[in-house]
Amino acid sequence: MTDPVPALDPVVLAERLMACDSVTPAMGAVFAELSAMLELLGFAVHRFVAGEAPDGPVENLVAIRQGPEGSRHFAFAGHLDVVPPGEGWTSAPFAPERRGELLYGRGAVDMKGSIASMVAAVAQVPREAGTISFLITGDEEGPARFGTVAIIDHIRATGDLPDLCLVGEPTSVHRLGDMAKIGRRGSVNIWLTAKGAQGHVAYPHLADNPIPRLVALLADLDALVLDDGSDWFQPSNLEITDLAVGNPATNVIPAEARARISIRFNDLHRGEDLVAKVTELAQAHKVETRAIISGEAFLTMPGDFSALLVDAVEAETGLTPELSTTGGTSDARFLRAVCPVIEFGLSNATMHKKDEAVAMEDLVVLSRIYRRVTLAALGH
Amino acid sequence: MTDPVPALDPVVLAERLMACDSVTPAMGAVFAELSAMLELLGFAVHRFVAGEAPDGPVENLVAIRQGPEGSRHFAFAGHLDVVPPGEGWTSAPFAPERRGELLYGRGAVDMKGSIASMVAAVAQVPREAGTISFLITGDEEGPARFGTVAIIDHIRATGDLPDLCLVGEPTSVHRLGDMAKIGRRGSVNIWLTAKGAQGHVAYPHLADNPIPRLVALLADLDALVLDDGSDWFQPSNLEITDLAVGNPATNVIPAEARARISIRFNDLHRGEDLVAKVTELAQAHKVETRAIISGEAFLTMPGDFSALLVDAVEAETGLTPELSTTGGTSDARFLRAVCPVIEFGLSNATMHKKDEAVAMEDLVVLSRIYRRVTLAALGH
Repeated sequence: MTDPVPALDPVVLAERLMACDSVTPAMGAVFAELSAMLELLGFAVHRFVAGEAPDGPVENLVAIRQGPEGSRHFAFAGHLDVVPPGEGWTSAPFAPERRGELLYGRGAVDMKGSIASMVAAVAQVPREAGTISFLITGDEEGPARFGTVAIIDHIRATGDLPDLCLVGEPTSVHRLGDMAKIGRRGSVNIWLTAKGAQGHVAYPHLADNPIPRLVALLADLDALVLDDGSDWFQPSNLEITDLAVGNPATNVIPAEARARISIRFNDLHRGEDLVAKVTELAQAHKVETRAIISGEAFLTMPGDFSALLVDAVEAETGLTPELSTTGGTSDARFLRAVCPVIEFGLSNATMHKKDEAVAMEDLVVLSRIYRRVTLAALGH
Repeated sequence: MTDPVPALDPVVLAERLMACDSVTPAMGAVFAELSAMLELLGFAVHRFVAGEAPDGPVENLVAIRQGPEGSRHFAFAGHLDVVPPGEGWTSAPFAPERRGELLYGRGAVDMKGSIASMVAAVAQVPREAGTISFLITGDEEGPARFGTVAIIDHIRATGDLPDLCLVGEPTSVHRLGDMAKIGRRGSVNIWLTAKGAQGHVAYPHLADNPIPRLVALLADLDALVLDDGSDWFQPSNLEITDLAVGNPATNVIPAEARARISIRFNDLHRGEDLVAKVTELAQAHKVETRAIISGEAFLTMPGDFSALLVDAVEAETGLTPELSTTGGTSDARFLRAVCPVIEFGLSNATMHKKDEAVAMEDLVVLSRIYRRVTLAALGH
């Protein structure tokens, strides 16, 4: 195949995206930059805003370059928003700066860098190879209610559904290529409220202290073994993340006690079943529950898709990526409903920290990996 | 014996004291009112201020009327400060108002009313009967660090130590005369702090969640049976009164978790031993403790003193007062170090509530009871 356009430098592309302040939710300039790059490469770009306050509005971008009739469709998904920079940076977080072998700036690895690498990659893939799309949101780091969810609504409406999707999250740990994610645990938060009757500590028979009931429930929950892990997942885990009474008076028995738990669960559970289990235990202690399921566990079983990714990584880095399901959630939890999803990207060592940085050489190598993956995913 | 002065009306005396706003700590006007009454009855009045911020300064009053050489010494102890009135009163809390058979106003029963009854009582006791003193503080409802404690320092210095002491707290429950207190439980508050290491809920192995250790300790503490009660006391009781983490982030494992317990304990324990017991349990869960012992349990064994009180109450009301050790703490916890102490006073039904009120007839009857008790305590 011949290159349709001159080679693009992913470092320069990354700098252009990183120069835009795009603290979540991202809007405007950073989307204009990416649109210009993709239009240059022959993509039809659709930018749209979804949602209302408090979790919106959110800007999203769907760009597609149609291949020949009947060709396969490969999608790259990601986000242009970044977490707030915080304090203590050596250089300004939105003025990308090259120092030695590294490029510094917020979003360097999470994940403007990988978007830049993918843009440079597709510049090396001819239109005839197949259909390629970019599914890019401005709200992955925030509530994520009107981001990738709205993008999926859009592509369902247009019918432009991909066959495979790669999410460019920074999945590498120590070196580019050492880890990819083929699944993620599910996540549910449950708020626990024990109600009693206020009173004086000297007259406990006239009060009903809710704290012992809450404590007994929490001890039960902490002792719970949800599972021993599954083929591709570590054991599910329950953490108690908050306790609250707010009683300043040493001689008062409070009327209410609250706690919050967070469960990260594997593919042996559904969020709904875990909520039912916790609620049953809570009811035995007369404790009320309220739950929010952030995402179900999902797994893209190792197979052709993971094999082509592993091949590409091995060819460019010599490393065999571990196929992992560890860590937090990502927008892959939504995209899994559309097609098989794998996540692979830069090293996450500086993600969400001050002085976030990427090795410039990694951007070049990642671009080569993405080019190989794209071609293989399109059947070449 | 002959009356040394014309009879005083305890209702009028109570109104004069209740007309002074004396929210804890009480200073000034209300002490001037009481001083004037006592000087009229031949008492030598000493008013003094003790302590510094934050728990001072506090005004105190020691008034003494010496009997003949070698006579017995009977003390009446109490406080002129009151708890804040709060909202919703029918009449102004510091503008005492007679409505029907009741006198309304903050301090009516706790305990300006009983001080007024005692003043009226001693007006009916001749100087020759023996030595009488009033030990009155302006801080019983507050921290109480520079109140009765400072009064005891003062009388130890002057050598004017009583043989018996009656505290005029509102000990009656349903009807004047149904209960006296011959002891009080001790009280200790213990603050519990579990320290861990903050982290992300998706990576619990990189964090150390302190909440399960705190919860396990609290479950142990809640299961603790301190005793089954003693001859004169109900069982000791432990209440968990607060929980605090203050973690708003659902995906964060917090670094610290805190709780507070309150133990009301009987004469089978000393505060120090209970603190040691809780601290040992806490250490097993790597939880830190900080304790403040507010008072030790004490008991004035039923005997001559309680018998003369019971006789006086029976004579004036027909009721036999229950000799109880229930309820919260009072300044009797300090005075017990000086001499035998019993508490007896008005009905506590409206104590610390809005529309605090006393039956005017009760003030008159209580004055008669106090006169009988005073004479008997002095050996007549």
